[in-house]
Amino acid sequence: MLPDELSIIDRFFRPLAGEGAFNLRDDAGVIAPPPGHEIVVTTDMVARGVHFLDDPPDTIAKKALRVNLSDLAAKGATPMAYVLSLGLSPEIDDTWLAGFVSGLREDQAQFGIRLLGGDTIAVPDRTVASITAFGSVSKGHMVRRSGGRPGDKLYVSGAIGGSAAGLALITREEGPWTGLSERQRALLVHRYRVPEPRNQLAPALIEFASAAIDVSDGLVGDCDKVCAASGCSAVIEADKVPLAAGLEGSGRPDLVARLLTHGEDFEILCAVPAAKGAAFEARASAVGVTVTEIGKLVEGQKLPVVLFEGRPLSLSRRAFVHGAGEKR
Amino acid sequence: MLPDELSIIDRFFRPLAGEGAFNLRDDAGVIAPPPGHEIVVTTDMVARGVHFLDDPPDTIAKKALRVNLSDLAAKGATPMAYVLSLGLSPEIDDTWLAGFVSGLREDQAQFGIRLLGGDTIAVPDRTVASITAFGSVSKGHMVRRSGGRPGDKLYVSGAIGGSAAGLALITREEGPWTGLSERQRALLVHRYRVPEPRNQLAPALIEFASAAIDVSDGLVGDCDKVCAASGCSAVIEADKVPLAAGLEGSGRPDLVARLLTHGEDFEILCAVPAAKGAAFEARASAVGVTVTEIGKLVEGQKLPVVLFEGRPLSLSRRAFVHGAGEKR
Repeated sequence: MLPDELSIIDRFFRPLAGEGAFNLRDDAGVIAPPPGHEIVVTTDMVARGVHFLDDPPDTIAKKALRVNLSDLAAKGATPMAYVLSLGLSPEIDDTWLAGFVSGLREDQAQFGIRLLGGDTIAVPDRTVASITAFGSVSKGHMVRRSGGRPGDKLYVSGAIGGSAAGLALITREEGPWTGLSERQRALLVHRYRVPEPRNQLAPALIEFASAAIDVSDGLVGDCDKVCAASGCSAVIEADKVPLAAGLEGSGRPDLVARLLTHGEDFEILCAVPAAKGAAFEARASAVGVTVTEIGKLVEGQKLPVVLFEGRPLSLSRRAFVHGAGEKR
Repeated sequence: MLPDELSIIDRFFRPLAGEGAFNLRDDAGVIAPPPGHEIVVTTDMVARGVHFLDDPPDTIAKKALRVNLSDLAAKGATPMAYVLSLGLSPEIDDTWLAGFVSGLREDQAQFGIRLLGGDTIAVPDRTVASITAFGSVSKGHMVRRSGGRPGDKLYVSGAIGGSAAGLALITREEGPWTGLSERQRALLVHRYRVPEPRNQLAPALIEFASAAIDVSDGLVGDCDKVCAASGCSAVIEADKVPLAAGLEGSGRPDLVARLLTHGEDFEILCAVPAAKGAAFEARASAVGVTVTEIGKLVEGQKLPVVLFEGRPLSLSRRAFVHGAGEKR
C-alpha cells in the first residue's frame, strides 16, 4: 500500500469508478459481456521518458488510455471499461494527479468507458502506468491480424507521421516541420501527446475487414505483422499514404520512409476484400473517418515491398523501437 | 516496442499463451465467462525494491501473479487467465527471463490459468510488473467486503506473520526468527517470496461468508476495511490469531502487534454468520485449509478493537505501507 493510497483513491479515482467497480471499495471489479458477446482484452504499459515526456498530465493519461482503445478499435471491439495500475514517483503531487484524472474523466465521457479498478504504488524513479482495457465483440468475430488474403486492398485511416513530427518538434530536431505555422506545429505536438483512436471505425472493420492492426510501431512494420499472420506479402505504395497536415507536400523519399516506420500513429491499417472496398470506404466516410487505399496484399512469404513513385523505397528500419533512454 | 520484444515473446512468453490469446500474435485476447457467470477483474503492480528484492526471478513472477490470485480467492472467484505488462530494466537478461517464465509456467499449471496477453517495455531504472487477473463467479455472487453483519464470526485462513518474519530475515533484522532452525528460517523467507493464495477456499466463501478480503496490508488494517464497508466494528482476539511456524510461542504483545499489522500474508479474512460457522470450518477443512475463529463483528462505527489476553493491544500502526525506498 502506498502511504496515502486510500486518500488518493478517495480524492481522485473514486469519481471515475463505474458499474462493477464497487466504488473502488473492494478487492476486485466485475464485468460481463452482453449476451452473445465476448470480452476483448488488451494491455499496454507506458513509462516516463520512454512513451511520454514531461507532458501535461491530462495528455499522459489520455495517451495511456488511448493506446489501448486503439487496439480495441483495430479488433472491432466496442470499448467497455479499463483498470489502471499507477507507479508514482516522488515528484508526483496533487496537481499532477488532478490533471491526470481530468484527462481520464474526459476520455471516459468521450469513449463511453468506466474505471473498473486499479492499483497505486510508489516507485522511487520514474512514473509508470499500465492500463488493461476491455471491449466487447460478437462471439468469435474479433477482427484478427491473420485473415488477410492475397488480392485484398490495404487501407489506412486518417494520416501518418503526425506523432513522429510532433516528437521531433518537442525534441527540437530540425526538419520540414520546423517551418510550419505555430498552429500546425501545435497540432503535430498534440498528435504525439494525444492519439486519436479510431473506435468509430470498429463496426465497419467487423463488417468488411479481413484483417486489421493499429499502427503503433510504424506502418511498414505493422503491415509486416499482418502479412506474417495472414501468410502473405503486400505492396505498399508509399506515395499514396496520407501524411499529417503540414507534411503532405514534403515528398522526399527519405522523409516518407522515416514517417512510415516511426510508429505511434494509432491509425488503423486493414485489409479489405477488393469487392468490398467501395462499401468499406462509404461506411468509413459515414462515421467521419477518412480511409485511403495504399496498396494490396499479394501472394508470397517475403516482407512487404514499399514503393515510392513506382520504385522500391529505401528503408533503414521497418518498425520503431522504444529503446530505454532513446528519448529523454 | 522494446528492441527485441518480438524475440522475447517468441522465446519466452508464447509457450504460456492459452485459449483466447491467439498465440500472442494479435493486438488483443478474448475471454468469456461461463454461462450465468461474470468476470472478476483485479490488478496489482509490483516494483523491484518495493515489493520484491533481488529475489530469484521465478519467485518474483509467482509473487506478482499470486497477489492477484489471492484477490480472486477472497472474492470467491475461480481463476481463469491473466495479462502481464513488464517493464524491464537494462540488467535483465535471458537467464532472468527464463527463470521468471518458469515461475509463471509452474503457477499456470498449479492454479489452472492461462496467459491471455501482455506488453513488454524497456525501462531505464527498475523492473516493474503489472498483472491483471480474471476469474469467474456466478452472476451477482462475488463475495464483497460489505456484507458483514454484527454477530458474524471472524475467521482467518492459515497463519499470519510469516512474510513479515521472512522479510526481517532477508534484511538481517534481529528478532525471535533469528534463533530458528535453518529449515524454519528458509520457510519464512519462502513465505515472503511466494505467497500461498487460498483459491481452494473460494467455494466455501461463496457459500458461507458474508464478507471477505485478502490480507495484503496487515490483518488489522484489512479488518478495518471490511468493517468500514460493512458499516460495523469488530473485536479481534489477537492471541487467537495463528502465527507462522516458529513464531507461535513468542507470545510478546509487541511482536504480535507487529505481525498483525505487517501485511503480505495473503491469507483470507472473512466474516461468517454465527449459525454457519461450524459448516464453514468443516468445508474449509475438507479442502485442506485451516481456518481459525479470531473474533467477531460488532455494532458500531469505531475502528475494530484488538485484544491481547483480554486487554487492548497497543498498536503503533494498523496497516503496512509499501513506501518507496522503505526496502532496498
